[in-house]
Amino acid sequence: MHGEVSLTPERQAFYESLTPANLAPLWAVLKGMMPPEPKSKAVPFRWSYESVRPMLLKAGELLTAEEAERRVLVLENPSFQGMSRTTSTLYAGLQLILPGETAPAHRHTASALRFMIEGEGAFTNVDGERTTMRPGDFVITPNWAWHDHGHEGDQPCIWLDGLDVPIVQFFETIFSGGYDGKSQSVTRAEGDSLARFGSGLLPLDEDGRRYGATSPIFNYPFERTREALVAAAKGGGSDPHLGTTLRYANPVDGGWAMPTISTWMTHLQKGEQTKPMRSTDGIVMCVAEGTGEVKIGETVLTFAPHDVVAIPAWSWRSFKASSDCFLFCFSDRVIHEKLGFFREERS
Amino acid sequence: MHGEVSLTPERQAFYESLTPANLAPLWAVLKGMMPPEPKSKAVPFRWSYESVRPMLLKAGELLTAEEAERRVLVLENPSFQGMSRTTSTLYAGLQLILPGETAPAHRHTASALRFMIEGEGAFTNVDGERTTMRPGDFVITPNWAWHDHGHEGDQPCIWLDGLDVPIVQFFETIFSGGYDGKSQSVTRAEGDSLARFGSGLLPLDEDGRRYGATSPIFNYPFERTREALVAAAKGGGSDPHLGTTLRYANPVDGGWAMPTISTWMTHLQKGEQTKPMRSTDGIVMCVAEGTGEVKIGETVLTFAPHDVVAIPAWSWRSFKASSDCFLFCFSDRVIHEKLGFFREERS
Amino acid sequence: MHGEVSLTPERQAFYESLTPANLAPLWAVLKGMMPPEPKSKAVPFRWSYESVRPMLLKAGELLTAEEAERRVLVLENPSFQGMSRTTSTLYAGLQLILPGETAPAHRHTASALRFMIEGEGAFTNVDGERTTMRPGDFVITPNWAWHDHGHEGDQPCIWLDGLDVPIVQFFETIFSGGYDGKSQSVTRAEGDSLARFGSGLLPLDEDGRRYGATSPIFNYPFERTREALVAAAKGGGSDPHLGTTLRYANPVDGGWAMPTISTWMTHLQKGEQTKPMRSTDGIVMCVAEGTGEVKIGETVLTFAPHDVVAIPAWSWRSFKASSDCFLFCFSDRVIHEKLGFFREERS
Amino acid sequence: MHGEVSLTPERQAFYESLTPANLAPLWAVLKGMMPPEPKSKAVPFRWSYESVRPMLLKAGELLTAEEAERRVLVLENPSFQGMSRTTSTLYAGLQLILPGETAPAHRHTASALRFMIEGEGAFTNVDGERTTMRPGDFVITPNWAWHDHGHEGDQPCIWLDGLDVPIVQFFETIFSGGYDGKSQSVTRAEGDSLARFGSGLLPLDEDGRRYGATSPIFNYPFERTREALVAAAKGGGSDPHLGTTLRYANPVDGGWAMPTISTWMTHLQKGEQTKPMRSTDGIVMCVAEGTGEVKIGETVLTFAPHDVVAIPAWSWRSFKASSDCFLFCFSDRVIHEKLGFFREERS
Repeated sequence: MHGEVSLTPERQAFYESLTPANLAPLWAVLKGMMPPEPKSKAVPFRWSYESVRPMLLKAGELLTAEEAERRVLVLENPSFQGMSRTTSTLYAGLQLILPGETAPAHRHTASALRFMIEGEGAFTNVDGERTTMRPGDFVITPNWAWHDHGHEGDQPCIWLDGLDVPIVQFFETIFSGGYDGKSQSVTRAEGDSLARFGSGLLPLDEDGRRYGATSPIFNYPFERTREALVAAAKGGGSDPHLGTTLRYANPVDGGWAMPTISTWMTHLQKGEQTKPMRSTDGIVMCVAEGTGEVKIGETVLTFAPHDVVAIPAWSWRSFKASSDCFLFCFSDRVIHEKLGFFREERS
Repeated sequence: MHGEVSLTPERQAFYESLTPANLAPLWAVLKGMMPPEPKSKAVPFRWSYESVRPMLLKAGELLTAEEAERRVLVLENPSFQGMSRTTSTLYAGLQLILPGETAPAHRHTASALRFMIEGEGAFTNVDGERTTMRPGDFVITPNWAWHDHGHEGDQPCIWLDGLDVPIVQFFETIFSGGYDGKSQSVTRAEGDSLARFGSGLLPLDEDGRRYGATSPIFNYPFERTREALVAAAKGGGSDPHLGTTLRYANPVDGGWAMPTISTWMTHLQKGEQTKPMRSTDGIVMCVAEGTGEVKIGETVLTFAPHDVVAIPAWSWRSFKASSDCFLFCFSDRVIHEKLGFFREERS
Repeated sequence: MHGEVSLTPERQAFYESLTPANLAPLWAVLKGMMPPEPKSKAVPFRWSYESVRPMLLKAGELLTAEEAERRVLVLENPSFQGMSRTTSTLYAGLQLILPGETAPAHRHTASALRFMIEGEGAFTNVDGERTTMRPGDFVITPNWAWHDHGHEGDQPCIWLDGLDVPIVQFFETIFSGGYDGKSQSVTRAEGDSLARFGSGLLPLDEDGRRYGATSPIFNYPFERTREALVAAAKGGGSDPHLGTTLRYANPVDGGWAMPTISTWMTHLQKGEQTKPMRSTDGIVMCVAEGTGEVKIGETVLTFAPHDVVAIPAWSWRSFKASSDCFLFCFSDRVIHEKLGFFREERS
Repeated sequence: MHGEVSLTPERQAFYESLTPANLAPLWAVLKGMMPPEPKSKAVPFRWSYESVRPMLLKAGELLTAEEAERRVLVLENPSFQGMSRTTSTLYAGLQLILPGETAPAHRHTASALRFMIEGEGAFTNVDGERTTMRPGDFVITPNWAWHDHGHEGDQPCIWLDGLDVPIVQFFETIFSGGYDGKSQSVTRAEGDSLARFGSGLLPLDEDGRRYGATSPIFNYPFERTREALVAAAKGGGSDPHLGTTLRYANPVDGGWAMPTISTWMTHLQKGEQTKPMRSTDGIVMCVAEGTGEVKIGETVLTFAPHDVVAIPAWSWRSFKASSDCFLFCFSDRVIHEKLGFFREERS
């Protein structure tokens, strides 16, 4: 857009006088500030579940749940070592909970999602309602809602955590608090929220804003999502770029299920291959079922069940399914949309 | 609010000079124009299914479907004889379709709902997607969407029609048109809309405004609604005035499923009795399951399966269930809400 | 769409059995119920201010304000004699208030607008704030807000009233109430609402929903509206069908200023002529300034300052300005839009 | 919330095995990640116009506008040296334009505001419409709209720039482009946008989404804003915490004028003193008129006309006016609100 500004001794002296006054010359940095298009700092990366799982179980031996509070291995993007980021703006980690363990009740302004991977018997309480987490379920713990976890099964349970912590940190809006007791009292029977909000119906007498802009459905069971995806693939066909993709929606307003994290699931039938597209959001993908490969820019990554993949912003992506695939994804797209930043391009 | 205006000969002469000028003295009519609260013109009434059904079958003998175009007995409120109104603003009728019959494709700006009562094998096509209608299903034919019906079963099918025709007539906005062919070509597999919009999920790539402000789900199956109501009654309890009531929602924005007609279903458990309440909307109720009685003002009406009841605006209503009840209702509430007219009062 | 159903003796007997059961055969009325396009019951009509004004002043001699409560001559469409309707759904009347008179405080669920025509010194109080009404001002008395009028000048004041009474009656939602005292106490200085809401700014700490869905600006001064119209005509040009038209907006949400009545003002420059268009709403027009003619269907009506014209729904209309014109209009368009009924066509 | 996790040799070895696998133990960082409440990295700071102005004029001597492209001194918060940030998330700078200079047309996804400080004759073109910038005017150059500046006066012009660049950088969504020619062709007369959108009216036939979620009014003249504030202070009184504060609104939906930056102006009368409050947004304030002091946490800063003050997030703030004050402010509040992060507390 414009050339370099040459440095004369007079200018040099002027620049030096600016710093102590907490001023800086824009023209020295303008060019880098406004590139023609984004270049993400993050890199494409795949965490193989096969290799992370043993390390997670090892952590289970080395630390009690009490010591760790949350026994999680953070999936750090190679570009963000020590920064707890999986993409440039989102956090993801794999959490292990062993039979009989509990994670004490707390709340915070960061929004969290869980995508259940392995094991039976783990549950989450949100605001007085308990939900059992089964593999493939997508569970939300909304901004500022009390939540705790427990495990009444007899095998290790593992799930993927996704949080907007880097975003909340950037905006300097983290508040948090611990619950008085260890876990909350249960005030509604399991399944109540899903019954009232998750079947195309809504309560006549309640606006559903239990958790502000977050969906009042806090467990979207895989059983239903899978069934809907299979029916949609059969009913109206698949999109060349998206395959068959449904987003988790807030039934109260039709928006995204969470106010800061977009979530969706893509179903690809065996052999299906999508055309390249790119978008401004950075994506974390977790494989619910199936094997295949994803091409991100020039990088090709294969994937197997429960693998987690980081897809940097504005990089071309395409998928190839070796078997029937169900791919859970989350990104910061909802924020891009709200702020007028979202763009996508399709080949 | 104010007294009568006495009539002098001079005033009388003045009044007479106004009429030819297309003028009228407001003060002569103001009092009646602004009463302190509404008094509906409609009266409470119950149409017993047991007695209407034979008359409907008789109509089936007397007229072919072709002759009748739609073989419907309109449920006329006793206050609105000859005006095709069931409440002051809504139309309801019972429609009979016999095996092999079809109702040819057309469209109109009036919105219609069907509540399926009896029989197997009837279907509705809306805009290229077919849906089979099973007892208790709530089916929408949206404003200006092509629709037609058919019947592939071997027994008579009967459903309740609800339309906003009196409203569309009042606003002088009826447009209608017939389809070129008899029925539309089917372009999506059955169940596609429900899969894409009816499971707490939404398409990633489509705004869902297929039918303007009408829900893209055009069949809300009774099986699901019933299951949700039973779970909600168990999970979070029943409301003293509403029992357990869920409204049919538009997943795209959380609003009512239809832009001009509110629809909901109430579940009352055997022995449950609601407290009196009243609201500005006029309601048509159709019994999906159960027996009981409804008190409307001072009128008590018993009800049995498939009976239809008209509940006039702003009249106190309360329900008593002799057995487990599922009561489908529709009213003009959504319009009252949009125009700032809606009020309700609870005892 | 379909043929007549022939009448056999058997059918006749059947029909006769239906009436006492409060049933009616749809097929006998279906054809008239769903015409291919609307045909308004209203007719085009102009009330010449020159001829109505003396009658209004005569009413001022014949009745005290106390006797009349509101001294108004209703402009009744020739098709709706005795029904207090100017179009099929809206009421308009000319109101006279004499120096020193007051119209006592009351409220009702009907929404009212005033368009000021003649005189200085009249004022309206809405909910504790007073506004002086000057010719061309558009003043709102919102649904259920206390309001009263007074007159501190020394000449008669005349304004046009517009109300949604036929609509509120149709939906059976009229509530009304008189104030304890005669007029309200004033709690805000004049101009406060306009300052807070009417300058492209909004209060930081208030949502502006003082009157539900009605604009918190309750006087849109002609001075400003006129200035904006003249600037817009000059700045971006005039539309072939609309001339230069700005609608009165609710600053809180960008919607119409009133929830049941659309209001706008059209500016035509001397010699300007618009192309024919039609829309589903029925319109009442009041001439603020200028002379010209309006063609409605095949009827041509000339107009001079303060004349009022009724334009029936779905009739072709076009305007021709003999001098610079400012035309205030109101219609039921906002309801058509909310209910999915609105259509327009341009030649 | 929880204790430290002791470091055993075994754990140490485990931790070391994690890094190469791009994994990290959450429990080692969890405590710092979720503090009980925010502590902004920014510090309170005032840039005195009296001292910055000469440095800006010096820059005018040292560099041509062509060399600098935009001749701006960035106001860098002492905590963010070299990072072009005035608060933790926003950029502000003072821009000098000399008579006859132009800043060439470009566009970018960052949103910019100008708050005019000094001089006559400068103008901004946005998307084919030119607006003259007078002291106190608030001018928007929307996300992705072409814009350029020029100066036809004979004295230096200085304004404050505010941009969301740190936010757009964080989300990796910067796109930018230069215009073919130097400046755009003008397609609408000056004042057209203000006439159509800024007077409580809106075009009948246009949705006003010319610039997506940004207000179509792109110059809010100080003359109007000042007048509205003075009238509001007189009409309905001042708030103990806010003084008289009006926010710049988007007339299309009543939201903030910009999708990523909240803007408002506060009027304090001579002697007025506000009570302490705090909120999660970080604020940049520019003094349009008046003198006084602002207390931020324990820091007291005096201010005079055109001074710029940085107020960090979640710090208690209160104001004292030595003379009638008009204080222009901008912050990231709109984003906090959209994402569910906004909180405030009043003493």
